[in-house]
Amino acid sequence: MKEQTINASIVLFGATGDLAHRKLFPAMFQLYQKGQLKENFAVVGVSRKEFSHEEFQTIVADAVLTHSHVSDKEALTQFASHFYYLKMDVTDAISYHELGNLLDQLDRDYRTDGNRMYYMAMAPQFFGTIPGFLKSEGITDTSGWHRIVIEKPFGKNLETATELNEKIQKSFDEDDIYRIDHYLGKEMVQNIQVIRFGNAIFESIWNNKYIDSVQITSSETLGVEDRAAYYEKSGALLDMVQNHMLQMVMLVAMEPPGKLDTKHIRDEKVKVLRSLRFYNELEIGENVIRGQYREGTINGEPVQGYLEEENVDPQSKTETFVAAKLYIDNFRWDGVPFYIKTGKRLNTKSTEIVIQFKQGPMSLYRANNVNHPPNLLRIHIQPDEGLSLSLNAKPHGDNMNLLPIDMSFCNNCHNEVNSPEAYEKLIGDCLFGNSTYFTRWDEVALSWEFIDSISRAWSSGELPPPASYPSGSMGPIEADDLLLKDGFTWWDPANLRRS
Amino acid sequence: MKEQTINASIVLFGATGDLAHRKLFPAMFQLYQKGQLKENFAVVGVSRKEFSHEEFQTIVADAVLTHSHVSDKEALTQFASHFYYLKMDVTDAISYHELGNLLDQLDRDYRTDGNRMYYMAMAPQFFGTIPGFLKSEGITDTSGWHRIVIEKPFGKNLETATELNEKIQKSFDEDDIYRIDHYLGKEMVQNIQVIRFGNAIFESIWNNKYIDSVQITSSETLGVEDRAAYYEKSGALLDMVQNHMLQMVMLVAMEPPGKLDTKHIRDEKVKVLRSLRFYNELEIGENVIRGQYREGTINGEPVQGYLEEENVDPQSKTETFVAAKLYIDNFRWDGVPFYIKTGKRLNTKSTEIVIQFKQGPMSLYRANNVNHPPNLLRIHIQPDEGLSLSLNAKPHGDNMNLLPIDMSFCNNCHNEVNSPEAYEKLIGDCLFGNSTYFTRWDEVALSWEFIDSISRAWSSGELPPPASYPSGSMGPIEADDLLLKDGFTWWDPANLRRS
Repeated sequence: MKEQTINASIVLFGATGDLAHRKLFPAMFQLYQKGQLKENFAVVGVSRKEFSHEEFQTIVADAVLTHSHVSDKEALTQFASHFYYLKMDVTDAISYHELGNLLDQLDRDYRTDGNRMYYMAMAPQFFGTIPGFLKSEGITDTSGWHRIVIEKPFGKNLETATELNEKIQKSFDEDDIYRIDHYLGKEMVQNIQVIRFGNAIFESIWNNKYIDSVQITSSETLGVEDRAAYYEKSGALLDMVQNHMLQMVMLVAMEPPGKLDTKHIRDEKVKVLRSLRFYNELEIGENVIRGQYREGTINGEPVQGYLEEENVDPQSKTETFVAAKLYIDNFRWDGVPFYIKTGKRLNTKSTEIVIQFKQGPMSLYRANNVNHPPNLLRIHIQPDEGLSLSLNAKPHGDNMNLLPIDMSFCNNCHNEVNSPEAYEKLIGDCLFGNSTYFTRWDEVALSWEFIDSISRAWSSGELPPPASYPSGSMGPIEADDLLLKDGFTWWDPANLRRS
Repeated sequence: MKEQTINASIVLFGATGDLAHRKLFPAMFQLYQKGQLKENFAVVGVSRKEFSHEEFQTIVADAVLTHSHVSDKEALTQFASHFYYLKMDVTDAISYHELGNLLDQLDRDYRTDGNRMYYMAMAPQFFGTIPGFLKSEGITDTSGWHRIVIEKPFGKNLETATELNEKIQKSFDEDDIYRIDHYLGKEMVQNIQVIRFGNAIFESIWNNKYIDSVQITSSETLGVEDRAAYYEKSGALLDMVQNHMLQMVMLVAMEPPGKLDTKHIRDEKVKVLRSLRFYNELEIGENVIRGQYREGTINGEPVQGYLEEENVDPQSKTETFVAAKLYIDNFRWDGVPFYIKTGKRLNTKSTEIVIQFKQGPMSLYRANNVNHPPNLLRIHIQPDEGLSLSLNAKPHGDNMNLLPIDMSFCNNCHNEVNSPEAYEKLIGDCLFGNSTYFTRWDEVALSWEFIDSISRAWSSGELPPPASYPSGSMGPIEADDLLLKDGFTWWDPANLRRS
């Protein structure tokens, strides 16, 4: 399927933004290099700034050169020649007429079959406005397909997300709405389902009889950087948990789908959210930890605390860290805690899923009163991509003890097979009409419902404020206690590299 | 326990032989380097040849230098000074008096506490004779312990093994008889029990619900070399299957022992043999394949066939290859074939155990009508030592297919931690009185009973002669057919190295 070539126009709202430059232009160039975009495509970049087509083409080429490895500059020039620019006030119906005319022209020039993809890579306040005009001004009237890609955040809570969704659905069918969660485009996130359903030995033990707990962690070493204006209103809960963290929970916990198609997979994912245990305010206090980084040291460099960052309210209660214990109350997962943890300014940059297996009868090796480590399956999402399995083996020349060993497989260790970037895969999927790795409205709604219950509890004033943690640590002590009281510890990636 | 030092004399029958030079002297030196043999030990080398103590010490030092890495030559000289030599006719009672006198002297000089280990590293016809004289001539009368180590072969069939055993048991208790199977001294063979019982994820699926078949292969590239006189009377069945191959079957198939002690472990091992399905002559023809190498090519060099080898009868029916399908008729293994294969002049030197897991419901990935490889756990015994797990993952940029990957752990890849040689461990075990990794009489007797049933069928003249296979191949086609008719194939190590 992916060998084919697509004919389409792409309208990129937010064409001068950071995302377009760092991710979208390079991703489209990769698709071009692989022949999935060939002669019959054109891209219209839209923003409020003033550029000529030629200036924009230079910007695109420069962005691709800066943010990816280009061996064929001739191809890059060819690629950039497919880009056009339009200055638009997206709140003004009139400016869509010019867009429509340009697109009609490009449809003819590039024989795009009238297929159009609209990519919202801009400030979220316009996510609802633009689709309405695209329809009312007749842009979506061609006979080809029309798909809209929405970047995060999709709303700020269930209410605003629902409003936004209703607006978009007036212009686009649910099947044509591609809500981006770029974690779903990552190789190893997509690999979760294969690891589970393609390997009998894992699926056989993928349940509460054999699994003791699941840990999903996504840690960053960066602080809020220049995104404080956005981050102050969001925090880690909305920025990371509502989308990426819950998506990974769904993929780890879902039942096997009847078929590997979009509907079956998303049906199973949403069922996980339906089984997610909701907490009352007291339980949220016990099971959901929020933290905020203070000054500390990252890679030997002193860094300032969140409250000292530019554009941050010195009294801010915004959390830069969340750890939580979740339960999925269904047959498979009854009694198995899912621990999630995400935060900024932690000591490692790493996203990882750790499946901790029950110990089984270990009495044979308890002679020395040593606690032997449990078997762990670790799925490394980033920056390493791979799998490892922590086992016990025999120390050399000793038959009565256990030695922890790691078996591992690295997915991105061989330079010849660089994993495709998430955005390349997601843009490709949208062009080919595969929405499996985009979020469906019911998933979004349910995840907001859960997140809202936490936000409400936190803003009630009854619960303690974010726990302070030093930059460069593994988060607040409260997050460690969350596991300790259940007899677990976080499998910090730094501690796991034994071999 | 292994940190201690042992006080003992070692009497080495067959001190000028190949085994002593290549394996036993270097192994003892390792024990010396590790301090398990220190001041209070002496070795008396015995053979029919004439040497002075000094000449023998030079021979010992030279052998250690030749066959192992020695960094401390001073230590080697010290070590060799503990060696003494005695020319003996082991069939003559008188010559034991001189041995007794020398040992008494060494007991005093080296304060060995009268502990004595007798190592039979010589032609098997003397295995029964020597123990009788050791007792009758009072050598075993000291107050210390007395242990006898018997090299293979332990008999030629059940009858001769029983005779031999009865002779030895007149002089030594079963607990003091250490029957060597040097495969049991190998790191990864000893690791089998830890892999199984120290890892909940494996033990949970170590049965006929999850395991499809087990393959145990031990292939050599060498031919019969200069051992034809022995090999003509033995063949692969007696040389490899009766001992090494069945021992590995037992370790893979045994139930968890109640404790990790010698008795519990050997009790469980022998139960496997009691459940081993015996075949009638017709079934042996179907399930046990014998082969004999003909000329061919090994590593690009032409080599001659078995019948052309020196000291081989040109009409010889001796098998240089055996492949068999075994069944262990108990609760755990009902219906799971254990395929074993061993041979000379095959295309790889490798000993490996492969656990092939059942596929589980793979319908999700059957869309393309491709047969996906099953999950395999491979235990690499030699020359590589390690573990690998063959899994399925996602090919880059493709979500509907499976890509086979290997996770692996290498036990002998780090030069700093060279695995101890089998003989070092076994001599150490004997000195410390641990007979876990030696074979108990009931194991030996049962394995002979099974092997005899095959020998009888083969010599009846009713079954086809050994199938011819070219040197450098993977054995006769009949061995492939043995698995093919069950829907399996041999997991040739050469084919398995995918990554």
